[in-house]
Amino acid sequence: MSEKKISIGLFGFGCVGQGLYDVLNHSQGLQATIDKICVKNKGKQRKIDMSYFTYDKKDILKRKGLDVIVELIDNADEAFEIVKEAMSNGINVVTANKKMLAENFAELYKIQQENNVSLIYEGSVGGSIPILRNLEEYYDNELLSRFRGILNGTCNYILSRMELENKDYNEILKEAQANGFAESNPWLDVAGFDTLYKTCLMAVHSFGLILKPVQVLNLGIQNISYDDIVYAKEKGLRIKMLGTGYKSEDKFRVYAMPHFVNRQDDLYNVLYEYNAVEVEGAFSCKQTLVGKGAGSHPTGSAVLSDISALTYNYRYEYKKLNKIRKALNGDYNAENFLDNNFPIKVYIRFKSKDQLKGIEIISIEEEYKSERTNYIVATVNLKSLFSLKDNKESKVFVCAV
Amino acid sequence: MSEKKISIGLFGFGCVGQGLYDVLNHSQGLQATIDKICVKNKGKQRKIDMSYFTYDKKDILKRKGLDVIVELIDNADEAFEIVKEAMSNGINVVTANKKMLAENFAELYKIQQENNVSLIYEGSVGGSIPILRNLEEYYDNELLSRFRGILNGTCNYILSRMELENKDYNEILKEAQANGFAESNPWLDVAGFDTLYKTCLMAVHSFGLILKPVQVLNLGIQNISYDDIVYAKEKGLRIKMLGTGYKSEDKFRVYAMPHFVNRQDDLYNVLYEYNAVEVEGAFSCKQTLVGKGAGSHPTGSAVLSDISALTYNYRYEYKKLNKIRKALNGDYNAENFLDNNFPIKVYIRFKSKDQLKGIEIISIEEEYKSERTNYIVATVNLKSLFSLKDNKESKVFVCAV
Repeated sequence: MSEKKISIGLFGFGCVGQGLYDVLNHSQGLQATIDKICVKNKGKQRKIDMSYFTYDKKDILKRKGLDVIVELIDNADEAFEIVKEAMSNGINVVTANKKMLAENFAELYKIQQENNVSLIYEGSVGGSIPILRNLEEYYDNELLSRFRGILNGTCNYILSRMELENKDYNEILKEAQANGFAESNPWLDVAGFDTLYKTCLMAVHSFGLILKPVQVLNLGIQNISYDDIVYAKEKGLRIKMLGTGYKSEDKFRVYAMPHFVNRQDDLYNVLYEYNAVEVEGAFSCKQTLVGKGAGSHPTGSAVLSDISALTYNYRYEYKKLNKIRKALNGDYNAENFLDNNFPIKVYIRFKSKDQLKGIEIISIEEEYKSERTNYIVATVNLKSLFSLKDNKESKVFVCAV
Repeated sequence: MSEKKISIGLFGFGCVGQGLYDVLNHSQGLQATIDKICVKNKGKQRKIDMSYFTYDKKDILKRKGLDVIVELIDNADEAFEIVKEAMSNGINVVTANKKMLAENFAELYKIQQENNVSLIYEGSVGGSIPILRNLEEYYDNELLSRFRGILNGTCNYILSRMELENKDYNEILKEAQANGFAESNPWLDVAGFDTLYKTCLMAVHSFGLILKPVQVLNLGIQNISYDDIVYAKEKGLRIKMLGTGYKSEDKFRVYAMPHFVNRQDDLYNVLYEYNAVEVEGAFSCKQTLVGKGAGSHPTGSAVLSDISALTYNYRYEYKKLNKIRKALNGDYNAENFLDNNFPIKVYIRFKSKDQLKGIEIISIEEEYKSERTNYIVATVNLKSLFSLKDNKESKVFVCAV
């Protein structure tokens, strides 16, 4: 393993980009320097010497002598173009862009194989938690049966503060936006899309499944009220936004939605911006990894760790994915492995019964009615909950029991 | 990375050896077979075909065509001889023998370098928890400031049952021995030696320090009584046997002893045979990994993961250790980095004051006397607690506050 000096071309200098810059400056061993940074906003004041910056992506994509391109911009479509072009040019890429990865996984996988380059993205799931590489390397031969995780720091921060400060959703969301813990447009986080993208990436590395985000259910916390927190508290429960996947016969059930967890649950005490991932294997049993799921330095350190891994030519081997593809003779259609048609017990809070239209209720276990609000605890068909996915009109809050 | 078939020579077919055999039989991808197993006890009934077994270690050490030797025997001295000889013959070795590793680390490190072979031992710390490889690979450039862990399943099992079943130490120990959760001679576990060895290995991979077990303080739970559990319970605390290490100015403080932890502590809910490791870095912040710390299959799966890693020529790079050695121009003496001379606040339960002889008490904060038992909460010099290390006569229970 060489100790060569690494030259980095960086796209984006927001929160994570600046974190990477800091972490790199304090690195204890890695010989790596940022050569050039491509940013969009010409007017913005930057913390470091302006000679680093360019506004033309060709200045990096066509640059000679770069060892790695690190993509840390917000826009998933632009990121995809950059990553595709870099890999097609034979350059290894590090990214933390879960949306871009999840939306385009099949193509990104193909480009890696065709160009014999490495695309690694530890920072995209669980921030500083080293989950993807462990799934790839440590659990490479292990029969994983289940994963489950608090994957979105914004949701967990809002849920923790609502409970611990007895405040309503909108109040905390506003404060979170002011503190930088939530985006000005928080939809991707609070409606469960960020969790969904990470859940899709977990499915690739846990089970070898490439799922399209559109195929997988995500429900968020955008309709939660303090009533739901009180309901949970009274029963000694907490509400956590989780992404999960598990094997059921020869298929997999994968979805992202709020869940009640009890005091004995390892995820119960994971609060605020902390994330946690639980994986379960036939032999290694249950493992839980907890760490900061977001933030400039934690994610920057995950990105640095990826850059460091490239110094010894690390790449994801996708052993599980390759095995499934091989078994199928290349006729790979992940939909055949995904089971969305199953009963699940949920708590649903609603104002009026017509809000439940479209939800296939199999049986009702509890029903509460009042002037102000109503809820049921019922077994429903998960498939029917897709009517609530990305539905800005719906005011229903759903939480797995 | 090759997909070659791996041929394994195995020493020992006890709990972990049989676990490895099972895990290997259910492996999803790795092409590896156990070629020969060397055991000691000729009379013992074995679960698998007797043609696997030999009673002569030369049958494995001199065997042609083996790719890896896996050492899983109890006796640390014999294990050391086997591992040394195998590495000197140029064979890669996987082991889970923490005592052997910790007692002989400097020499084992040297033999690896001289013979250009790989010695890996993920199963030696934290059972199924992938901690060492993460310290090596993921935190390779990270400034780790601290680690802390529940590293011994036996202690944690005893402590959990004492608290949750309101029983005394001896009763639970006897049951644990009957259930296979404690050895017939439990001294290495309950007196904190097992935790000590693992703590020494954590210090190598966290900080780059090779410490001799004799230099590092370990106190155990062998003198705990139900009174201590009650004391903790009343204050909302739990007692956990921890190994810890942290940076203090330009030195490191490393020790293993019982600690009180509170409800908010990530380690509070880690119960029974579960282990947990917490590491803290300047940028990745706090990370916690929880999993089964012992047992046939969890440890077997860690060993399998090491074998799998050898298929792509994995080895620990010891970046942190090499960096320290380089900075010192080869004049490496870890004692210069170890600080044992510092004040620490502890709870000490004792029968009579003369039992405290040798402990340098700096100040007493609380004092409780009764006919049956006494305790103090005091600040003492850690160095003076070495008088209690491996001291079978002492009846004093010490717990860090």
